[in-house]
Amino acid sequence: MSRPHSEQLSLNTATVRQQWDLRQIIEGCARHEIRGISPWRDQVANIGLAEAARLIRHHDLRVSGYCRGGMFPGVDQQARQATLADNQRAVDEALELGAECLVLVVGGLPPGSKDLPGARQQVRDGLSALLEYARAGGMPLAIEPLHPMYAADRACINTLKQANDLCDELGDDGLGIAVDVYHTWWDAEFYQEIARAGLKRLLAFHICDWLTPTRDLLEDRGMMGDGVIDIRAMREAVEAQGYRGLHEVEIFSRLNWWTQDPDEVLKTCKARHLAHG
Amino acid sequence: MSRPHSEQLSLNTATVRQQWDLRQIIEGCARHEIRGISPWRDQVANIGLAEAARLIRHHDLRVSGYCRGGMFPGVDQQARQATLADNQRAVDEALELGAECLVLVVGGLPPGSKDLPGARQQVRDGLSALLEYARAGGMPLAIEPLHPMYAADRACINTLKQANDLCDELGDDGLGIAVDVYHTWWDAEFYQEIARAGLKRLLAFHICDWLTPTRDLLEDRGMMGDGVIDIRAMREAVEAQGYRGLHEVEIFSRLNWWTQDPDEVLKTCKARHLAHG
Repeated sequence: MSRPHSEQLSLNTATVRQQWDLRQIIEGCARHEIRGISPWRDQVANIGLAEAARLIRHHDLRVSGYCRGGMFPGVDQQARQATLADNQRAVDEALELGAECLVLVVGGLPPGSKDLPGARQQVRDGLSALLEYARAGGMPLAIEPLHPMYAADRACINTLKQANDLCDELGDDGLGIAVDVYHTWWDAEFYQEIARAGLKRLLAFHICDWLTPTRDLLEDRGMMGDGVIDIRAMREAVEAQGYRGLHEVEIFSRLNWWTQDPDEVLKTCKARHLAHG
Repeated sequence: MSRPHSEQLSLNTATVRQQWDLRQIIEGCARHEIRGISPWRDQVANIGLAEAARLIRHHDLRVSGYCRGGMFPGVDQQARQATLADNQRAVDEALELGAECLVLVVGGLPPGSKDLPGARQQVRDGLSALLEYARAGGMPLAIEPLHPMYAADRACINTLKQANDLCDELGDDGLGIAVDVYHTWWDAEFYQEIARAGLKRLLAFHICDWLTPTRDLLEDRGMMGDGVIDIRAMREAVEAQGYRGLHEVEIFSRLNWWTQDPDEVLKTCKARHLAHG
């Protein structure tokens, strides 16, 4: 028997980052009986790693992912080496927090570059180097394909197919995919690539909605049910592969949800997850 | 021998639509020795179809495409039938203008729908019906894959692969693809799908640039050279298939170019096309 649907909700802490610090978010999750959380590195640093880990354990929260590693491409070898070292620290932090995976936003073009195939090669090389370290520590790495509108500045891995190809090349041991409906809902190959990924690669499932119109490329994500994504169908696709992990709500919303009472935001996340997640 | 590079420039009339009406744009092209144009239906309607055709012939402009048909999905059969009739009128207008193709922005989800596979089926069906009419008149139809950020509201055909699949299914006779670097530059399969399309399907080539950051999903396109797209590499890819058609500049830019002196915009288009196109 799988858990009840309501217990599968996890809160990505970016969703209320303008209103609360990480301590308040953790306590908010506990108060609203949200059983999972996915914190960002800057929020962890603000209250301290040890304290963050203590609070998460105290409230018995699962950590559906740690946000985030990646950003592999760099202008030169020195920059890429610094990124690798920083990513290794992120792996260590993820281990300390008991995260189920380290989410990777792989990075886009280095400054001044138009060489997208080259950037993708740098992602492959950087990921390969980090994987060695993460495997030794036992922290799974989750490649998150980002929407193509972020190809220049955030992630040049933009489809599940690309992520699956990377997993094929680098090996499945300790490597998989974070599937975010916001980034992948448009993809005509979504369902076949979910099947290709299979249970072993499905490390995380992120939900929110695509608003029409979308007024900002980065910070106008919608609450589940307010947009056009068939979230239920996409969830059923990952569950058909055996996925029983958490459903992580991640909403960047400068124009709406970041301006709301955070307790109301959490209540809304819970209700909408049940109705549309 | 192919024509000199400078003679391959075509101006999509949206590029200066806030400053000039179609008559002024045609005369501007003639004055700046831009030998091709791609007008929009609303601009043609504003000065009258016959007058638009007369001016274009008078100035001996090539019409690299007519913008635009498509928008096939609809809430019901009646809506889709009305769209088909309107698309047939667009075919007639394109013929009158001597356009080299009718560009198709195929449409997104019908209002209230989350059924993306269903919308894609409606695109296939609507395109199939229009193709019969267009073939009889001898007007090539160019499917334009749009960037995935427009999947909900403008076009649910978002990759060259999807466009090639449609051409495979419906037949190449009178059917092909409009390749726009803005919509396709991020696609890891761009080069292989251009090769798959081949000369017979490459009906149009549109250029502009992707700005980082992009401040508006619709109206913040960049002038060639101001962004991250390797336009030259993409042009060489279509030319490697034998493409010798025009290079159509199409820039929606509420925040910049639409506020500039249109003669300066045309001069800039010419210079940037030579340097970066």
